[in-house]
Amino acid sequence: MNEMIELLQNHVSVRDYDDRIVSDEVKNELVKSAQSASTSNFVQAYTIIEIKDKQMKAGLAEITQFSGHLAKAPLVYVFVADLYRHAIQLKKKDVSLDGLRNMESMVVSMVDATLAAQNMAIAAESLDLGICYIGGIRNDLTRVKELLHLPELTVPLFAMTIGYPASKNDIKPRMPLENVIATDTYQTSLTDLSTYDEQIRSYYQNRNNQQTDTTWTQKNVDFFSIVRRPEFAQFLLDQGFTLK
Amino acid sequence: MNEMIELLQNHVSVRDYDDRIVSDEVKNELVKSAQSASTSNFVQAYTIIEIKDKQMKAGLAEITQFSGHLAKAPLVYVFVADLYRHAIQLKKKDVSLDGLRNMESMVVSMVDATLAAQNMAIAAESLDLGICYIGGIRNDLTRVKELLHLPELTVPLFAMTIGYPASKNDIKPRMPLENVIATDTYQTSLTDLSTYDEQIRSYYQNRNNQQTDTTWTQKNVDFFSIVRRPEFAQFLLDQGFTLK
Repeated sequence: MNEMIELLQNHVSVRDYDDRIVSDEVKNELVKSAQSASTSNFVQAYTIIEIKDKQMKAGLAEITQFSGHLAKAPLVYVFVADLYRHAIQLKKKDVSLDGLRNMESMVVSMVDATLAAQNMAIAAESLDLGICYIGGIRNDLTRVKELLHLPELTVPLFAMTIGYPASKNDIKPRMPLENVIATDTYQTSLTDLSTYDEQIRSYYQNRNNQQTDTTWTQKNVDFFSIVRRPEFAQFLLDQGFTLK
Repeated sequence: MNEMIELLQNHVSVRDYDDRIVSDEVKNELVKSAQSASTSNFVQAYTIIEIKDKQMKAGLAEITQFSGHLAKAPLVYVFVADLYRHAIQLKKKDVSLDGLRNMESMVVSMVDATLAAQNMAIAAESLDLGICYIGGIRNDLTRVKELLHLPELTVPLFAMTIGYPASKNDIKPRMPLENVIATDTYQTSLTDLSTYDEQIRSYYQNRNNQQTDTTWTQKNVDFFSIVRRPEFAQFLLDQGFTLK
């Protein structure tokens, strides 16, 4: 259709990078592209922290458990949902911070951070870089907060590793369209996924690394059969959000 | 740098569309591009609902208050953070849904929906379409839930209007880079924003529509001086999330 759409539809997560460093000029374009994303009511409620320090990279990699490549990635960013900056502005005018602490504002900052991150991901891929989102930093948010010295009203949402690909997996087939798109009304019926499940099984059996034998359905059942990161809500409360 | 980075950095929200309809071929590419975005642990926890019905568009426009253009937009999508599909899969295997209901899983679904939306936005802009995110549907989530017949464990996060631009605003200048990007450690000090505030004042005074006299700082103070959408948390509880 066009090069941009091809780029978007050819996305794969890349965890294996060669030794080439990413130039400051490129990094500047990545951040500018991130900043150009839409932002709710122009609040720009996010901060991007580049992790350069080797020990900090190692510390974050340890927290993420399954993302050891983070320690060796040429470029590592942590995306922080961030209303602290706005708190400074409100305090200067003696305005209560209650408007920052509620669920709506917290979600706004998380959406803003995610929009910026996806723009950076696409900018990186357009420059022949590979990227990988790492939600695994949420395994120990308090430790991440200590490492990055995060103030109240901030949430480290995920990290992103970036580098020039040494190897790539094939594109992972997405769910059948009819389960993802609907018209006017939500479709509560889930179509028969057996064909898709086998497609995914064959993907996981044949991919370059971390080969495994599972289906999409089985993977979801295993993944959600435990309550993951049960400390997340308490962390958000500790950060000054009311969850109300 | 390259055309895609130019496209990303030239983004403006577009609320004014001409009468050209968006072809099914284009719509298909938009949805496929959305699906190609990264998704946390491949859970694909979102649904995209195209709003075709005129009365539903009008209903949503009424809810959004300041987004009347939604009623006339050629193409309207609602992005739904969606774990209902996974609930079906877990129920079939008699697995508890607790793993879907907690804060971590809710945030995962919101991030997934946002990543997909931003891919669609960029795909649309690469095809000379203009887009606008509309968080205003969160003004009355219960009404949106009724209109779209949304089941438990789903959250209508925002809408997106898409069409061929009849007019465009200039690019809105983003915050000075030093406030958005940091290295290894969060920068708690907010740099002097007076120059940026005047830049934003002049943007708002001179843009094509909804001209106003405010700065970025003043806009944030006004915006967050009220507790917005206080029913959001209760809606999430009603949808089966524990917020724990």
